[in-house]
Amino acid sequence: MDEPTKLSRILIALGGNALTGSDGDASVDAQQAAVARAVVGVAELVAAGHEVVLTHGNGPQVGNLLVKNELAAHAVPPVPLDWCVAQTQATIGFTIQNALESQLRRLGSDRRTATAVTRTVVDIDDPGFAKPSKPIGRHLPREQTERLIALGQTWQDRGAKGWRRVVASPEPLTVLDAGTVRTLLDAGYVVIAAGGGGIPVVADGGGWRGVEAVIDKDLTAAILGRELGADVLVIATDVDHVMVNFGEPDEEAITRTTPARLRDLAAEFSAGSMGPKAEAAARFVDAGGIRAVISSLDHIVDAAAGTFGTVVAAHSDGHSDRADRHGDGDGDQTRP
Amino acid sequence: MDEPTKLSRILIALGGNALTGSDGDASVDAQQAAVARAVVGVAELVAAGHEVVLTHGNGPQVGNLLVKNELAAHAVPPVPLDWCVAQTQATIGFTIQNALESQLRRLGSDRRTATAVTRTVVDIDDPGFAKPSKPIGRHLPREQTERLIALGQTWQDRGAKGWRRVVASPEPLTVLDAGTVRTLLDAGYVVIAAGGGGIPVVADGGGWRGVEAVIDKDLTAAILGRELGADVLVIATDVDHVMVNFGEPDEEAITRTTPARLRDLAAEFSAGSMGPKAEAAARFVDAGGIRAVISSLDHIVDAAAGTFGTVVAAHSDGHSDRADRHGDGDGDQTRP
Repeated sequence: MDEPTKLSRILIALGGNALTGSDGDASVDAQQAAVARAVVGVAELVAAGHEVVLTHGNGPQVGNLLVKNELAAHAVPPVPLDWCVAQTQATIGFTIQNALESQLRRLGSDRRTATAVTRTVVDIDDPGFAKPSKPIGRHLPREQTERLIALGQTWQDRGAKGWRRVVASPEPLTVLDAGTVRTLLDAGYVVIAAGGGGIPVVADGGGWRGVEAVIDKDLTAAILGRELGADVLVIATDVDHVMVNFGEPDEEAITRTTPARLRDLAAEFSAGSMGPKAEAAARFVDAGGIRAVISSLDHIVDAAAGTFGTVVAAHSDGHSDRADRHGDGDGDQTRP
Repeated sequence: MDEPTKLSRILIALGGNALTGSDGDASVDAQQAAVARAVVGVAELVAAGHEVVLTHGNGPQVGNLLVKNELAAHAVPPVPLDWCVAQTQATIGFTIQNALESQLRRLGSDRRTATAVTRTVVDIDDPGFAKPSKPIGRHLPREQTERLIALGQTWQDRGAKGWRRVVASPEPLTVLDAGTVRTLLDAGYVVIAAGGGGIPVVADGGGWRGVEAVIDKDLTAAILGRELGADVLVIATDVDHVMVNFGEPDEEAITRTTPARLRDLAAEFSAGSMGPKAEAAARFVDAGGIRAVISSLDHIVDAAAGTFGTVVAAHSDGHSDRADRHGDGDGDQTRP
């Protein structure tokens, strides 16, 4: 603590896969163990005095809920996707609260935590509803999907693995419960919010109703971050940097870049899942955020400080856009 | 609006059965329709300017989740009861938010709503854990329970209907997330919290961990109400008044009473489920609440005003403890 750390309002988006066992094990024990690991860096940021909001994915967890829906449909009424998202917000939320509070107490911090059930507004005219394309849940043999297709679900032939359900993944427009999050954040809480991108709702008369869809959690995080006036968005995933030409002789890690350049590089990303993360980072900065950083969960503290990972900012500060994987030598000088 | 209404901080506890169809139908449509009816009176109180916190039961909803757990156990890991409670907090919570906001807009109110995931602390040494006695979920033939008993669950022979699982229903000690609720309430939100009595947690090292139990939602409401400094606790159920000797020639409705007298009468209650409601009402008043009222959902506005239902207060204000069902002629004079 030689130098005072500049305190920031930080939104951290945890990947849904970071909240299950390494093999996708979504048992309760595996989820709790994964969450306990995931909160270590988060707790360090909170204990240093930063204002922290956490959001999280929920893909494996929603997948399990869909299987339960399907296998119990003859006995109890299935619930729609918006309800599944809500369910995971609460279970992942309080699991994070328990783990994070334990870790904070170990660090001598008495900061409180809260989980806000969070709705995100989407447009019923979003093209996603007409052409669902986001695969969710498990693969099934074709004959088992016929009954589900008759219920109005869309299933696609995915080849040898079988058929898989696809749903709408509409653009998030605004986080309906952002005010709840801001109120709690301003009061000193670490807030867990907008899990799974938020419960999708559409305008309905004078109010809102849930709708069958899933929302990209990073795109929602970009919106929520700006609605909260967050300085920094950290997208925690399973790689240290966004890579281009991964596994090729000219493989490169992107260390510092601008929104425009990151979008230019998008076609070269190795992993398809990186596209929405890069787009979310770019949007957050375009909307006025100081920086968005994509990096791995283990480097969350340095990522928040902008000293590790793929750092996206309006100006690239004279750094080159690309460097090799170990090319950014800033170390962890801003850590408390 | 001839006379200004005295504004109160009111905690309303909605029964879990009031949130499903009349025949216990827990389909999504039936739940949404029931919630839309349940929020009409609540919205009237909010629009009149009262500070309102809502809590709710979740028995039918948790029952459905347990069936899903059981029928899908060969495919996906079952989740424990604390997770089921969390799941229902989120689904019922955002369903109430959507319905309540629509109703508020119709009344010209722009009050905001929030759902807080809420943990309630219980004692791991509570006798309920050694001798589980609260029946939950569906009846099963004995042979289907053997596998579940082997997993550590307790099932009891309930005669002709089959066997049923019993779980711990420990005393709620404190609402861990009451500060979250208070922060939002103070900021003007209508807050939905402590659904299903709260997610049961026990002390674990320096923190908290979830535990397999269900907590009586009315007993938790009594604690939460006092932690929030609520003036009034309304326990909304399916009867207008607490009745003694129901169906007998000497049947009587209790209109105004004190905590001590209500406890004296408890042995004469017709319905077993009334015991915890009466005890919760008595505790709320004993702990300093102005009044607790047990009445039906349709009379929630008058119940909150203390002009209908079974009104429990430290002093019975010269009214007789018992009156016939139509004996309290106060009308709705305090309504705005």
